[in-house]
Amino acid sequence: MRILVLGGDGYLGWPTALHLSNKGHEVGVVDSCVRRQYDLEMGVDSLVPIAQLQRRVQVWREVSGREVACWVGDLVDPDFTHRVVREFRPDAIVHFAEQRSAPYSMIDQKHAVYTQHNNVVNTLNVLYAIAEVDPSIHLVKLGTMGEYGTPNIEIEEGFIEITHKGRTDTLPFPKNPHSFYHLSKVHDSHNIQFCCRIWGMRSTDLNQGVVYGQETDETLLHPELLTRFDYDGVFGTVLNRFAVQAVAGHALTVYGKGGQTRGTLDIRDTLACVELACLNPPGEGEYRVFNQFTETFSVLDFANMVAEAFSGEVKIEHTELVRVEKEEHYYNAVHTRLLDLGLKPHLLSKETLQSMLAMVERFKDRIDPKAFLATVNWRHASNYLPTSGSPLPQ
Amino acid sequence: MRILVLGGDGYLGWPTALHLSNKGHEVGVVDSCVRRQYDLEMGVDSLVPIAQLQRRVQVWREVSGREVACWVGDLVDPDFTHRVVREFRPDAIVHFAEQRSAPYSMIDQKHAVYTQHNNVVNTLNVLYAIAEVDPSIHLVKLGTMGEYGTPNIEIEEGFIEITHKGRTDTLPFPKNPHSFYHLSKVHDSHNIQFCCRIWGMRSTDLNQGVVYGQETDETLLHPELLTRFDYDGVFGTVLNRFAVQAVAGHALTVYGKGGQTRGTLDIRDTLACVELACLNPPGEGEYRVFNQFTETFSVLDFANMVAEAFSGEVKIEHTELVRVEKEEHYYNAVHTRLLDLGLKPHLLSKETLQSMLAMVERFKDRIDPKAFLATVNWRHASNYLPTSGSPLPQ
Repeated sequence: MRILVLGGDGYLGWPTALHLSNKGHEVGVVDSCVRRQYDLEMGVDSLVPIAQLQRRVQVWREVSGREVACWVGDLVDPDFTHRVVREFRPDAIVHFAEQRSAPYSMIDQKHAVYTQHNNVVNTLNVLYAIAEVDPSIHLVKLGTMGEYGTPNIEIEEGFIEITHKGRTDTLPFPKNPHSFYHLSKVHDSHNIQFCCRIWGMRSTDLNQGVVYGQETDETLLHPELLTRFDYDGVFGTVLNRFAVQAVAGHALTVYGKGGQTRGTLDIRDTLACVELACLNPPGEGEYRVFNQFTETFSVLDFANMVAEAFSGEVKIEHTELVRVEKEEHYYNAVHTRLLDLGLKPHLLSKETLQSMLAMVERFKDRIDPKAFLATVNWRHASNYLPTSGSPLPQ
Repeated sequence: MRILVLGGDGYLGWPTALHLSNKGHEVGVVDSCVRRQYDLEMGVDSLVPIAQLQRRVQVWREVSGREVACWVGDLVDPDFTHRVVREFRPDAIVHFAEQRSAPYSMIDQKHAVYTQHNNVVNTLNVLYAIAEVDPSIHLVKLGTMGEYGTPNIEIEEGFIEITHKGRTDTLPFPKNPHSFYHLSKVHDSHNIQFCCRIWGMRSTDLNQGVVYGQETDETLLHPELLTRFDYDGVFGTVLNRFAVQAVAGHALTVYGKGGQTRGTLDIRDTLACVELACLNPPGEGEYRVFNQFTETFSVLDFANMVAEAFSGEVKIEHTELVRVEKEEHYYNAVHTRLLDLGLKPHLLSKETLQSMLAMVERFKDRIDPKAFLATVNWRHASNYLPTSGSPLPQ
């Protein structure tokens, strides 16, 4: 099928595009490359050096013989978005193209507004482009498990049947997210659901957990196909950061008690889930939600597992809780719909961790310990960022 | 107390400012006057002629001897927002300053994005201004009953206790709104609730029903103090529109069967509710929701009541359902919290309707029947608006 990957230059967007291309789909990628700009702003960098988007696409052509169409532009621009959808005329659009860091969204007013504006408006533009070009195009949207927050009841996949005062209805699962970034995804979910209702569109909202890992079948084919790997306090996901801290001989820094529990998955499962969603589209007018993760761990679980997998000495350090979140809480979330479609999870094993640690070891020279700092405190409306060298412009 | 009214030039913002001033509060108003620009764009006008904001403020000074501080500017500009909050240093901020028309938000991509950007970003700016100037400032935010949609269970005030698989939690009431405008209010509600949690702010979210009426104790003191009265297909609320249609000898146009049931209230009750919320602020970190309406009626109920109150002949006409909504549905919403604070509702009586009809009669010459048209169809991603004389720029 024809699949357009928005955000195709990013950590997950790029390997997803390669995976779909390798499976024989006609793939196009769209990206503004702004993710690289965030690194320049923050003064950090991917642990793994990455080739430019146009170069990656060329290397993939050479390695695989497959063509990936490529547009560089900003989806906040409605004309650009409309043009790309019209030109490529996809069967499915996989939408990764959002600012995806919670701490980045919490830096200050400017970054909060940027995140919500960028994410909400580009998704509205994609929705309008689909409505006008062909409402049967399936929108596969990356959401996040963080939309739900940490309720004291079991989290369902998007909807919950509620019986209240003798009457019953199935309604959207209540959302209680933890950052302006997560809120932007909640806003998107409401907007998308509405568009399915009024325009008969079809959409799958993938509420994804925290992804770890970096190597996929396709990216390993050539050094210039590798995807980025972030370990800094702003963009690094927690397990990736712990792996780098261990290799650097730095303590694993756990915020607060570390009882914060989250759904998680291997990068290879992200790729599989996205393809499963594309291959099994919902019906006309249907908005469905899949909780896209395979296991749950607490932050402290992750730290202990990395410490155990690492060959050397590792210290675990509890640092100030910079986010406003519960350090210990109930967490149980349903995640059966992707399994029902045939997902075969890669569970987190000592071997997985060791191969991740070996990858980090290869790029050890590029580690910058300054990047480990948790520089953004949720309680401050305006944060000063030491890694960026100077206060951010207000 | 010191109360800053955002959107103080609007249908409700202006009479609210006068009411609060009359009650002895120190009042400031802020408005970009963009509401008047929408009229120019749509080619419609308020039935009642209204004075310019600066002139209104001057007349109020002459009539009452009271001073209302006044800023003209756009809250989407963070510097302006911050400056006003710092200069006036209110105890409470009453936030009406949003694009408030569902049909306007559904015209096309440009108007949907404008509505969500304007409403969400200006509210984020207000939140950041409060956080930075003084987190104890009470934000009284105008939301809408439309945030809930029409669930098949009783609607609670903002939160619902859910028991699910043997566990219980009180969570935000699930939202299922009917337009990009209503969605913008849902986005605001999520953002505000989050800010109360992280910054210890206090906020009251007034989920208001459909307001009718135009005369208040203060606006009747001078013709140049009158507030606007909209009856057009884009900005007119339903009862106001029916009153004008009756006086114009036009059929009352009911979309579909007219079983759409909504909470409603008299404009004088809006003023009273806002003051009650200001005088009874929530505690530090508390986000609370009041369902602000006094009665529920279906659209057809409204039409029948207007027909009965009007002295002449009135026809009721069922026209195409241009919105995507249920024509008949369960509707029952709790609304006790404002009554508990002492609200004495003005219920919708024949006398109220007759005084409204008499007011419309006085401005009969200004009625433009073209404005009655329901020009925006929810099912079209792009609507052509005959009243604006030409297709909107895309």
